[in-house]
Amino acid sequence: MTETPDQSKNILVVAAHPEPRSLNASLTAFAVDRLRAAGHQVRLSDLYAMKWKATVDADDFPSHAPDRRLHVMDVSQEATLSGRLSPDIAAEQDKLRWADAVILQFPMWWFSAPAVLKGWIDRVFTSGFAYGPDVPPPYGEDAPLSGRRALLSVTYGARERSFSADGIHGRLQDVLHPLQHGLLRFTGMAPLEPFAVPEANALPAERFADAREAYARRLDTLFTSEPVPFRAPART
Amino acid sequence: MTETPDQSKNILVVAAHPEPRSLNASLTAFAVDRLRAAGHQVRLSDLYAMKWKATVDADDFPSHAPDRRLHVMDVSQEATLSGRLSPDIAAEQDKLRWADAVILQFPMWWFSAPAVLKGWIDRVFTSGFAYGPDVPPPYGEDAPLSGRRALLSVTYGARERSFSADGIHGRLQDVLHPLQHGLLRFTGMAPLEPFAVPEANALPAERFADAREAYARRLDTLFTSEPVPFRAPART
Repeated sequence: MTETPDQSKNILVVAAHPEPRSLNASLTAFAVDRLRAAGHQVRLSDLYAMKWKATVDADDFPSHAPDRRLHVMDVSQEATLSGRLSPDIAAEQDKLRWADAVILQFPMWWFSAPAVLKGWIDRVFTSGFAYGPDVPPPYGEDAPLSGRRALLSVTYGARERSFSADGIHGRLQDVLHPLQHGLLRFTGMAPLEPFAVPEANALPAERFADAREAYARRLDTLFTSEPVPFRAPART
Repeated sequence: MTETPDQSKNILVVAAHPEPRSLNASLTAFAVDRLRAAGHQVRLSDLYAMKWKATVDADDFPSHAPDRRLHVMDVSQEATLSGRLSPDIAAEQDKLRWADAVILQFPMWWFSAPAVLKGWIDRVFTSGFAYGPDVPPPYGEDAPLSGRRALLSVTYGARERSFSADGIHGRLQDVLHPLQHGLLRFTGMAPLEPFAVPEANALPAERFADAREAYARRLDTLFTSEPVPFRAPART
């Protein structure tokens, strides 16, 4: 049963799979439908459908003089603060400002996000917007995107036990540390436990139904479940 | 002093910085020159200069029927085994086969590789080449790229102590786990301790000279230094 939210929230879903008929894309569609049915406002950035440009380069900063050295942090900060970013980047920043929660839906490729999603991160999270000297410091309660919940929703081919403390690949939370901690926590978001569908390359129908049910429970508790604790620095 | 290698080796340098005048690009040039001066054969894949396509899509597999579902693993395996990959991908696979060592030189963006380098990984490390049912299993001595040494050479803006066990970001080796373990070890390569230049956004000239000297020592011992130990699964 779907919880009735106290109020309608704004949710940004960012999806990064090249095939609309894939399991991953079907999870995206499922999430969008379920969240809307629960009364939320949902915006979808389907990066493949948008033909999202993945690579940071001088074209991202239309006012950057071509003969000037491209110091990415400085140039992106200048363009951000003066409102002269490439329009595709500015539009995604508006979605992030608007969102109460962000879901990144992607297949794990080489233990991380597909390049098109990494390129969404590299290009959208500019200095002056998501980090840098002109915004509050990272990790804190005032960090640029604080107050937003964030959920990584991943599919992968391996068996579930491979991603565990005694599994061959290590714990999923460690594998996803660059995103969970380095992106989400860093910018002030509250990351939830990732949602993962293992053995996604050949999922029998009944296991897909189970996965969808499990995802439904995660979506229904998007605003009520406890975020993962802040990574306490190890004391050596 | 440069060690004289017992024999000339083949080294692939993959670089991912948009600005040829950057610190990062100068480290690439330094590595190429130093390795050649030591008698090695060096090939450079400068991804920005090559305008490397970052995003995996159906164009990577010219013989894939457009109306057929793009199951990336299956389709990339078919194209790999039948020699029908996009030529830019096949050329990079040839370089990896040729190489005795691989250096990935990049600025850390959001705790990982820039999208263009992630896209080099996503597109080049196809099923049938770097993993999959038709090649030996991962991590082992027969894994597809075994026998090759691998060095991540990164620059980042933070202070060095931020990337430590009791630093705010966690240990560099944990942050780089998806590459060190999930890419390099997985495909059979022997990853060395990463080489890192901290505070790279505003490096004074004398610290750059120090960094270059430190890099020189790492390059000179590329084939003699001990790889990092295989991540032993934790016993919980």
